Amino acid sequence: MNNARPREGPPLPRFAQLATFMRLPHVPDPKGLDVAILGIPYDGGVTYRPGPRFGPADVRQHSRLIRTYHPVHGIKPFEALRVADVGDVRVNPMDVQNNYARIETAVGAILDAGAVPVCVGGDHSVSLGLLRAVARQHGAVGLVHVDAHQDMWDEHFGNRYFHGAPFRRAVEEGLLDTRRAIQIGIRGSVNDAADFDFARQHRVRTIRGEDVAREGIAWVIRHLQRLGRGPVYLSFDIDGVDPAFAPGTGTPEVGGLTSREAMALIRALKGVRLVGADLVEVSPPYDHSHITSLLAANLLFEIVSVIAATRAEKRRRRPGPRKVGRKERAR
Amino acid sequence: MNNARPREGPPLPRFAQLATFMRLPHVPDPKGLDVAILGIPYDGGVTYRPGPRFGPADVRQHSRLIRTYHPVHGIKPFEALRVADVGDVRVNPMDVQNNYARIETAVGAILDAGAVPVCVGGDHSVSLGLLRAVARQHGAVGLVHVDAHQDMWDEHFGNRYFHGAPFRRAVEEGLLDTRRAIQIGIRGSVNDAADFDFARQHRVRTIRGEDVAREGIAWVIRHLQRLGRGPVYLSFDIDGVDPAFAPGTGTPEVGGLTSREAMALIRALKGVRLVGADLVEVSPPYDHSHITSLLAANLLFEIVSVIAATRAEKRRRRPGPRKVGRKERAR
Amino acid sequence: MNNARPREGPPLPRFAQLATFMRLPHVPDPKGLDVAILGIPYDGGVTYRPGPRFGPADVRQHSRLIRTYHPVHGIKPFEALRVADVGDVRVNPMDVQNNYARIETAVGAILDAGAVPVCVGGDHSVSLGLLRAVARQHGAVGLVHVDAHQDMWDEHFGNRYFHGAPFRRAVEEGLLDTRRAIQIGIRGSVNDAADFDFARQHRVRTIRGEDVAREGIAWVIRHLQRLGRGPVYLSFDIDGVDPAFAPGTGTPEVGGLTSREAMALIRALKGVRLVGADLVEVSPPYDHSHITSLLAANLLFEIVSVIAATRAEKRRRRPGPRKVGRKERAR
Amino acid sequence: MNNARPREGPPLPRFAQLATFMRLPHVPDPKGLDVAILGIPYDGGVTYRPGPRFGPADVRQHSRLIRTYHPVHGIKPFEALRVADVGDVRVNPMDVQNNYARIETAVGAILDAGAVPVCVGGDHSVSLGLLRAVARQHGAVGLVHVDAHQDMWDEHFGNRYFHGAPFRRAVEEGLLDTRRAIQIGIRGSVNDAADFDFARQHRVRTIRGEDVAREGIAWVIRHLQRLGRGPVYLSFDIDGVDPAFAPGTGTPEVGGLTSREAMALIRALKGVRLVGADLVEVSPPYDHSHITSLLAANLLFEIVSVIAATRAEKRRRRPGPRKVGRKERAR
Amino acid sequence: MNNARPREGPPLPRFAQLATFMRLPHVPDPKGLDVAILGIPYDGGVTYRPGPRFGPADVRQHSRLIRTYHPVHGIKPFEALRVADVGDVRVNPMDVQNNYARIETAVGAILDAGAVPVCVGGDHSVSLGLLRAVARQHGAVGLVHVDAHQDMWDEHFGNRYFHGAPFRRAVEEGLLDTRRAIQIGIRGSVNDAADFDFARQHRVRTIRGEDVAREGIAWVIRHLQRLGRGPVYLSFDIDGVDPAFAPGTGTPEVGGLTSREAMALIRALKGVRLVGADLVEVSPPYDHSHITSLLAANLLFEIVSVIAATRAEKRRRRPGPRKVGRKERAR
Amino acid sequence: MNNARPREGPPLPRFAQLATFMRLPHVPDPKGLDVAILGIPYDGGVTYRPGPRFGPADVRQHSRLIRTYHPVHGIKPFEALRVADVGDVRVNPMDVQNNYARIETAVGAILDAGAVPVCVGGDHSVSLGLLRAVARQHGAVGLVHVDAHQDMWDEHFGNRYFHGAPFRRAVEEGLLDTRRAIQIGIRGSVNDAADFDFARQHRVRTIRGEDVAREGIAWVIRHLQRLGRGPVYLSFDIDGVDPAFAPGTGTPEVGGLTSREAMALIRALKGVRLVGADLVEVSPPYDHSHITSLLAANLLFEIVSVIAATRAEKRRRRPGPRKVGRKERAR
Repeated sequence: MNNARPREGPPLPRFAQLATFMRLPHVPDPKGLDVAILGIPYDGGVTYRPGPRFGPADVRQHSRLIRTYHPVHGIKPFEALRVADVGDVRVNPMDVQNNYARIETAVGAILDAGAVPVCVGGDHSVSLGLLRAVARQHGAVGLVHVDAHQDMWDEHFGNRYFHGAPFRRAVEEGLLDTRRAIQIGIRGSVNDAADFDFARQHRVRTIRGEDVAREGIAWVIRHLQRLGRGPVYLSFDIDGVDPAFAPGTGTPEVGGLTSREAMALIRALKGVRLVGADLVEVSPPYDHSHITSLLAANLLFEIVSVIAATRAEKRRRRPGPRKVGRKERAR
Repeated sequence: MNNARPREGPPLPRFAQLATFMRLPHVPDPKGLDVAILGIPYDGGVTYRPGPRFGPADVRQHSRLIRTYHPVHGIKPFEALRVADVGDVRVNPMDVQNNYARIETAVGAILDAGAVPVCVGGDHSVSLGLLRAVARQHGAVGLVHVDAHQDMWDEHFGNRYFHGAPFRRAVEEGLLDTRRAIQIGIRGSVNDAADFDFARQHRVRTIRGEDVAREGIAWVIRHLQRLGRGPVYLSFDIDGVDPAFAPGTGTPEVGGLTSREAMALIRALKGVRLVGADLVEVSPPYDHSHITSLLAANLLFEIVSVIAATRAEKRRRRPGPRKVGRKERAR
Repeated sequence: MNNARPREGPPLPRFAQLATFMRLPHVPDPKGLDVAILGIPYDGGVTYRPGPRFGPADVRQHSRLIRTYHPVHGIKPFEALRVADVGDVRVNPMDVQNNYARIETAVGAILDAGAVPVCVGGDHSVSLGLLRAVARQHGAVGLVHVDAHQDMWDEHFGNRYFHGAPFRRAVEEGLLDTRRAIQIGIRGSVNDAADFDFARQHRVRTIRGEDVAREGIAWVIRHLQRLGRGPVYLSFDIDGVDPAFAPGTGTPEVGGLTSREAMALIRALKGVRLVGADLVEVSPPYDHSHITSLLAANLLFEIVSVIAATRAEKRRRRPGPRKVGRKERAR
Repeated sequence: MNNARPREGPPLPRFAQLATFMRLPHVPDPKGLDVAILGIPYDGGVTYRPGPRFGPADVRQHSRLIRTYHPVHGIKPFEALRVADVGDVRVNPMDVQNNYARIETAVGAILDAGAVPVCVGGDHSVSLGLLRAVARQHGAVGLVHVDAHQDMWDEHFGNRYFHGAPFRRAVEEGLLDTRRAIQIGIRGSVNDAADFDFARQHRVRTIRGEDVAREGIAWVIRHLQRLGRGPVYLSFDIDGVDPAFAPGTGTPEVGGLTSREAMALIRALKGVRLVGADLVEVSPPYDHSHITSLLAANLLFEIVSVIAATRAEKRRRRPGPRKVGRKERAR
Repeated sequence: MNNARPREGPPLPRFAQLATFMRLPHVPDPKGLDVAILGIPYDGGVTYRPGPRFGPADVRQHSRLIRTYHPVHGIKPFEALRVADVGDVRVNPMDVQNNYARIETAVGAILDAGAVPVCVGGDHSVSLGLLRAVARQHGAVGLVHVDAHQDMWDEHFGNRYFHGAPFRRAVEEGLLDTRRAIQIGIRGSVNDAADFDFARQHRVRTIRGEDVAREGIAWVIRHLQRLGRGPVYLSFDIDGVDPAFAPGTGTPEVGGLTSREAMALIRALKGVRLVGADLVEVSPPYDHSHITSLLAANLLFEIVSVIAATRAEKRRRRPGPRKVGRKERAR
Repeated sequence: MNNARPREGPPLPRFAQLATFMRLPHVPDPKGLDVAILGIPYDGGVTYRPGPRFGPADVRQHSRLIRTYHPVHGIKPFEALRVADVGDVRVNPMDVQNNYARIETAVGAILDAGAVPVCVGGDHSVSLGLLRAVARQHGAVGLVHVDAHQDMWDEHFGNRYFHGAPFRRAVEEGLLDTRRAIQIGIRGSVNDAADFDFARQHRVRTIRGEDVAREGIAWVIRHLQRLGRGPVYLSFDIDGVDPAFAPGTGTPEVGGLTSREAMALIRALKGVRLVGADLVEVSPPYDHSHITSLLAANLLFEIVSVIAATRAEKRRRRPGPRKVGRKERAR
């Protein structure tokens, strides 16, 4: 496992070899990993433009540009942590319930191995499977949910398990600590004023896209203190970002976050105890010049880096014997 | 109903007004129609690249170029027949069985009205619903099936109702008169030699893509005599045509029919008693410059025209009093 | 007319049925409407990249995502007002003068019916026809003109009626109350310093794109008080927005408004008496992933919503018997 | 003028320097040229998808790949003839009649200089201006017209000068010797059976697209003997070719010529006395990977080459003193 | 090694997991393989449009559709042979000579392991490295070279090692048995008549693109007997195929092979002793809807299948004890 | 030379005639020019996505929209200065050292003529050649370097002359006055913390992308005073701008400058003594709707305009006899 490092740039060109997330080694077994990057190529839950089933493959391909040092955190996350591409969930494209079972199994194995699952969708319906697995280990978790939509609808054509409902289901199933939940970037037309009731009733904090635009990202970041010290899950729907920066998605909403704001937001999670994360709704057929996949790849790098930076900081604060085995890994 | 005519070119430019199939009037009720063009925007049955849910909308938009006189048949199909765009099936995108019920209802209404349903997919799974409705009225029907794939697989992830299986299901359900069935353009790699067994066992005639290339379309056309005089259903999967001519589809196979061959094939159905037809698997996200939708629109025009030409010929052969009401319509 | 409502999301998927603006009913006759959305597929007035003739069709197709509740205004505009897609002007693509006559007729009928015309271009030359019809009913109107260009050139190859001149013609014809006119987003190279003279001489207020960038949209909005209480026309050229957000246009200028700013601007018109509006210069051949058409659709929704919000506010302020018939409509 | 040669490949890379047709020198004055390649960036005559105004620029850019030796004719046309890019007609985009005057002036100057005009559209309306200039010098000419459409409609919205009418006008104006005229590739739906009457009445030979497909290009070529020994004009609408090979055009018709057939056809004109030619209807906004412009560039090279081969053959047959000045040119 | 099989379709969807060639296992060490598929992402040798460096990654991604049974040969090549994706050559993008050394090392290792290298470019310059390795083991080999260009130029800007020269170098280095060499599909303009001299002098048989079009692929195939019984190398430049079928390439030439002809050609190599092969010049930035990569993937499948079919036939003809170990592999 | 003016808009449409930078005359000889715009179509130095070799041609084509008056500076740069398109460097695509020699020769000639070279790449490796020529005349120069990357790596596959190293080489060769050097927009992952050492050691001021986002462009501009009064070179890598605004580039980094910021930055150079400039890394194969080339064209116009504005200001401040010959030029 100690080879869980990205392939070097030189002497292997970035465009060479099989595509893995950020050129990390492909290590199907999560044992020994700190962070496991997992693809979930399922899009049976979309309601408009399909395509996220190709998200993991495309993000892998266009994550080749990611290098190893994060200059803002001042850290090399793939040295600080053992990170690998564990491949894709063997999704069932035809049966959402069976698919949830498969996601829970795959993510459960990662969690059991002591690793943090960082997942790449797929549509947003997959987050429910992820949260089930995470809550089984950590109990109800806090939530940072970046999205244009609350995804707290009840049902769609009688189906309660689709990309517009995962967080309603998660609340109903007790997977979320809603006092420590925040939604950022919500905007656009909805079906009814009542659409917002569920979040309000469960005291989920909602920061609208208009608020971000008017108040600035620094103002938004101050609300993250709500997350507290407990375990937190990060769910990032790429449509939280504006279509100019992320056209390749299925239900785009104009007026979204800039890529700068998106990155600043994730960086601000330094200190938060992230126990799982997903980046969903990248739809390659609607991308162009791969800018959406490239942004997604960078956001994944931000997620891994902020986990690394958080742990590094913790170690600095808590003096004592260094974690065994760390030395070998860090060479 | 007597306004079931395409909008005139001048003085209304082709690019003006709402998009309907071939600029025909939008007439939701099929009563009084000879041919009803129906969209079925369902793609829950795809196994690879999704997108045909947008097929009907895109074919409508790019069928604006279709004019009213067919120079090879020498007929104006929209004067010879009462044809209209009856809109889309109110599909259930989340439940294939419920969707089949909806298709059967919509198509049944068309058939009950005495009209021939000419449908635009959607993925190929919809053909099963269509055939059920057609067979309920006409009994087991002959089949012309143009496709790169036989679509006679058994199941996919435990699901027996998807775009790889409609014709196996149709045979099992007794909807097809397999002695009068022919598949044209089958090609590409498959999972096993046994994949071809089902068609062979049921004596469906299969003409491979390689045969078309080597023997020529005239040779292929001679096999159409197999269809006999009974009712025949035409199912045209756009991937029967080569990706150079029809890139916008989900499981493209190289080495396919040219657009010339595809049109010649449909024209050769003159004299065949077509009781229903579909054109499926147009996937706009993978199209470019709309050439696939344009081809699909032209193939639909060929289908309507060959129905018109067949009826016109029949009338010429069977002298007697003209059908009542025809005169009014023809003004 | 009381069915002038968008088709419901469920049980009809957004991607199903014929494309109308925002899935509103297609109601050719404007009688009984409060707002009539009208397409004007004319682009005979462009000077560089053509294509806006396909604007109405494309905006219709990609407005399918628009839902019915506007969360910032807190209003359901299609319940508060009777709104429908009245189709397209039967444009004459070959004769600009005849085309103006056709526009005036179509828009005049809308105004005569007591409805507000909200129009989708087409190139910017169409605004002159619109303003003529509007001024005939309302007299000289105030103007909010969002654009990269002033469109106050004199002529082009001897032609005085093209997309660079509508507002000069409108001023010359006395259609505008220039003291209540404001242009926002003007930027980019021009032919001469004298290009700006016409607006200055007629005391049209011009806020440059650089001003928006430097001072912020809140500063811009404060200038809207100039519009006063009289009737105001809104003309929104999509190239007012930056090419990153709206690539699908014919004379793009870098450094434009963001989509956030564009939406904030329209929302800020709450309280203004809008008597007509247009959204022009969407050129689908130059769009990608339909982000320009999607933005245009959202801006149209903002326009209808701000009209609804303004009227709702007025009703709240002016107590008295509710307008007859309103109750039935609101069911 | 003796530098009227394409720029060499090495040591100047094909992708370097300003784009001219086939990397030929830009020589605005046609004096001393044998063939003048002229752009006509006018598309005011289109009826559906616009864009050919950018045809000359795009064909120039993608003609960079054309080299100097034609291996089938065994000739170096730019050594055998003095050929140059004379630039574009200074079109009037707003006035078709004035535009015709400008075309006639520019082409007249080329003809007066003794050069053959080979023109790049622009839409097909420009051919009328070209034929007027050609007929003024040569009298009524024979015609090879490759196209999906006959372009012999009468009018469009009252306009008699648009891309659907140039050859009707040309016949009416006596510019064509219709006994020596042939149309190849005509296909697709039309408005009425009577659409074909004009050509038939004037005894223009029409070879349909279906004929080409069924009989083969060699059969088609045999009909070229109809052209006789008099002066002949070649008008090649890129939509004569199938959209798979030439998607970048405005009124595409499926079932067209292959690029092989198109090239064979032009090569077969060896021996014909070509006095002018055009290649029209390339619409870059609808092209992809520039394959349409590349095909157009190759067809232009075929046209110039067949002129060169015809003249070379003539010289070989007619022994005697070599044409004066030829030696200097051939260095 | 006995797991050198493509991943099954169900229960793993084709779009899931890391992209490898035809979903074969990634096995970096060629030991025990019969066929090793190797990427060579080098494009330092292109002269016009770059991009083939991304060829291997894109062909991997779009080869997901390839299944396991070849219906024309009636064989399952991945059961008949041990085939795997051995990854990419660690190319040096900055130094062609060093790159050749790296190619020779990688390919030499495959040959030493007794496997046939089937390589995916990269530009055509890589074939020289491949031929050096192959000839070192097999001596001078026969050649089937499908291409629009002879690639027998001498130099380019003083550089003798680029994509226009590999076969001239190969002949000079004695790597080819030119009496058993054939080039198919050569066409398009060249710099000089003398360009063809090298092939002629070395008695390489050249079948021009025009010959293929006129005489048919069956006629072409008859010339393959020239290959004899000795070892043969197949080099397939995707630009041998027409841009309509393969737009994603750097120096496209119109008038090329159809995909049907390309596949028929490779299938006809049954019985030929292929000792190595390459498929080069796929340039993803110029592809659309991935049709070029899909065609390339299918041609690779044809290559592997014809090797399998040839060996199967040989075994059938030569009775005797079955090869040891075969049984285990075939489970 | 006094015709060094852009072609007029009317009566020549912007889309007509050969493409030159900003429709300026093509004047190969720089004598008599104040500013020479020079293309350098070389991309042999890229490390990831190739394509900038087509940058000059594409920027020329899409600079057609640039007009002649700069409204913010209030100047007509092409009247204030003699500006022309001097064509492209005759690059050697195969040999970086030889290419540098060619660049130095071409740029040296421009400098010798007393003109300021404003160059269009090509990849960033070309800047070293430019700086050598500039420093030969002006000595070590100050630097404004807008980019996502510092381009101060040491080597790549043993090659020290590629697009990641020009400024390290320039410092080593003494071409830069590093106390007057500033880099703006640097961001994204790098290989190591030590990557930043070189700039720091040489006291180059680096303003990160995050700084621009957080502090605003006005804050950034205040740092430009560092440039002092000496000669300054401006190197603008289009990837300094965000991929939403400039997708057509080879190593895109999310979170970049907006186009507004980019333009404000260049405008703020008024008063700085610019002695040379480049705009590099535009990669047309990855552009869409040409928005990157359009932005590049506008940035070039900003560069020429700020040079003109600086000189105009200087003249106003320094009274005395007007420069001889100026009057003629200014007509």
